[in-house]
Amino acid sequence: MNNFIFQNPTKLIFGKDTISSLSSEIPYDKRILITFGGGSVRSNGVYDQLKEALKNHHYIEFWGIEANPDISTIRGAIELGKREKCDYILAVGGGSVIDGSKLIAAGILYDGDPWDIVLKRDWTKEKVLPLASVLTLPATGSEMNSGAVISNREKREKFAFYSKHPIVSVLDPSTTFTLPKHQIACGLADTYIHVMEQYLTTINQSPLMDRWSESILQTIIEIAPKALNGKEDYDAMSTFMLSATMALNGFTSMGVTQDWATHMIGHEITALLGLTHGHTLTIVLPGTMWVLREEKGEKILQYGKRVFGIDGDNKEETIKEIIEKTKNFFKSLGLKIKLSENGGDISTIEEISKRFRERNARYGENRSVNSEIAKEILLHVL
Amino acid sequence: MNNFIFQNPTKLIFGKDTISSLSSEIPYDKRILITFGGGSVRSNGVYDQLKEALKNHHYIEFWGIEANPDISTIRGAIELGKREKCDYILAVGGGSVIDGSKLIAAGILYDGDPWDIVLKRDWTKEKVLPLASVLTLPATGSEMNSGAVISNREKREKFAFYSKHPIVSVLDPSTTFTLPKHQIACGLADTYIHVMEQYLTTINQSPLMDRWSESILQTIIEIAPKALNGKEDYDAMSTFMLSATMALNGFTSMGVTQDWATHMIGHEITALLGLTHGHTLTIVLPGTMWVLREEKGEKILQYGKRVFGIDGDNKEETIKEIIEKTKNFFKSLGLKIKLSENGGDISTIEEISKRFRERNARYGENRSVNSEIAKEILLHVL
Repeated sequence: MNNFIFQNPTKLIFGKDTISSLSSEIPYDKRILITFGGGSVRSNGVYDQLKEALKNHHYIEFWGIEANPDISTIRGAIELGKREKCDYILAVGGGSVIDGSKLIAAGILYDGDPWDIVLKRDWTKEKVLPLASVLTLPATGSEMNSGAVISNREKREKFAFYSKHPIVSVLDPSTTFTLPKHQIACGLADTYIHVMEQYLTTINQSPLMDRWSESILQTIIEIAPKALNGKEDYDAMSTFMLSATMALNGFTSMGVTQDWATHMIGHEITALLGLTHGHTLTIVLPGTMWVLREEKGEKILQYGKRVFGIDGDNKEETIKEIIEKTKNFFKSLGLKIKLSENGGDISTIEEISKRFRERNARYGENRSVNSEIAKEILLHVL
Repeated sequence: MNNFIFQNPTKLIFGKDTISSLSSEIPYDKRILITFGGGSVRSNGVYDQLKEALKNHHYIEFWGIEANPDISTIRGAIELGKREKCDYILAVGGGSVIDGSKLIAAGILYDGDPWDIVLKRDWTKEKVLPLASVLTLPATGSEMNSGAVISNREKREKFAFYSKHPIVSVLDPSTTFTLPKHQIACGLADTYIHVMEQYLTTINQSPLMDRWSESILQTIIEIAPKALNGKEDYDAMSTFMLSATMALNGFTSMGVTQDWATHMIGHEITALLGLTHGHTLTIVLPGTMWVLREEKGEKILQYGKRVFGIDGDNKEETIKEIIEKTKNFFKSLGLKIKLSENGGDISTIEEISKRFRERNARYGENRSVNSEIAKEILLHVL
């Protein structure tokens, strides 16, 4: 096991009718900037519960943080927050709203352009405003981690930066009942592949972390059909919501190496084609697994055996079978998982490969995913 | 899944040669009271590393917090801390030292007798001094939770109370290399049964929490022989140390009910016979499982199947087999697991039953463990 430092101070308030708890969680003397995505929270009751909870607080609203939050939108929110002297941010929505709000919380206390913060990457030591969140779409884990991914559509770029954890996050699984099926599918995929990025690395680093990762994978596979069936299944949605948060809050990565090459390629697909983040990962992961089967082989076999019960004599054939099973799970979510089925073609691959070359990219656990390997991965899933 | 609130702010610094990190973790302007158990840290190098790390800090030392920390010892430490105007506590040792130090951290800021704090039980809202810890014996999880158990030998009592989490805990697995085999055995048992108290309850509350609990059980069974073999096995001891912390820090109990009846009976055995805490649990648990096989049956079957691979047609016979397997694991740790093998007899049972009756005890998930059931449990394991 590697040495590590773990700390996750976020207070999680989880369950039915918990949005009302914000009335006591947020101090009354704060000037809150509430940030929203589109208008879905107006129709699913979240907005009304929020207004009731904060009826004795001072707040202003900022609407319109889009999926893959764009720096231009965030600039607008920061301007508003500065003008209104806001000193507390409350993000209401999915991972995009929370990610964007992490940059807002940092940007209001920063004099320059917020894109500097994203490019700086590590903002963990800087002053930021306190941030709370109400999660309505389980997927990214942003509600209980310090990371955020921001897009710059003008430059067709998308980068992650790290700031502070939310102080408190409220997760009411019943707020997910009105989600479109495709968003649930992408959230399930995102959760699954967050785990894979922390798990599919060198074997025998930590037997406990391995099992905790496999637990999330098994649980997501188990509840996916129920989460997607369109009925108001509280048990399934609460398990999904808890799993998504636990998949990227540091709980499964203590003392182990991580990968994230699939994400780095996936971010480029979103930047170029506009696909939902979780969906891009289902396209890339099977390629990563196949192309990196030499370095990841032993862990792929462990994954196949423990998660799918697949065991075989021929290593290469068994790995193929495990990848096929993984692809079938993604397809069962209703996702088309070939690049060409989603608007991509050889020029997409050439562009991503060019970008990786220009920034001299070396991603993944062993820094082996460079421009050429990324191209090989993408050709495999074209 | 039940509603829940989760928050665990402790910073975990884990790995080789990490004690030196205390030099930057503890502010220089603090007057530290360092609390120790017996002298074992003098011979295993921990004390020297500590002195080096804190050479520019102001500190005084308090030695002699015993296993099952006694209120009279804690009173002495609090007096010293008050006299020396200490405003930071650093606990160095196992769970007993950390537990005792939680009461010291509370008691220095309290005007009355510290036993009041224990009897009050919930001290989470009160002011306490900041507490850091250096863990040298994996077992209780106290390094990353808010609980503590204090004994009152004069009254032959032992109760738990809840205060604040440690600010920071340093866990260097190599500090465990010099532990006596019996202490490692009791630590492994303690870890195992902490999980069981949060797991062996009503089924189908949270599939993820179930799997995370089973993961710790499987991992402890897997590494126990290596942890006990007396060689300096860093991988085994780091896995043991991480598992012990994760077994009682709230990570496996989100949204599920808990039991703790085995602990309540075990505390009485320690109070009466002086047995090590973890050891008492191995005596009681098989009795709890058997006597409560009606209410816990479905979960016992899940446990047996997933942890031991036991599956059978006859429910009662299968439960018997699962309990036997559990007992055999405890015996494999070198522990004698019958009450009568450890100085207990029918009078011990009568006394515990009497105490439960006097305090009108109703312990366990379903409040079914009263004086009579406790007696039945203990008779089963006599």
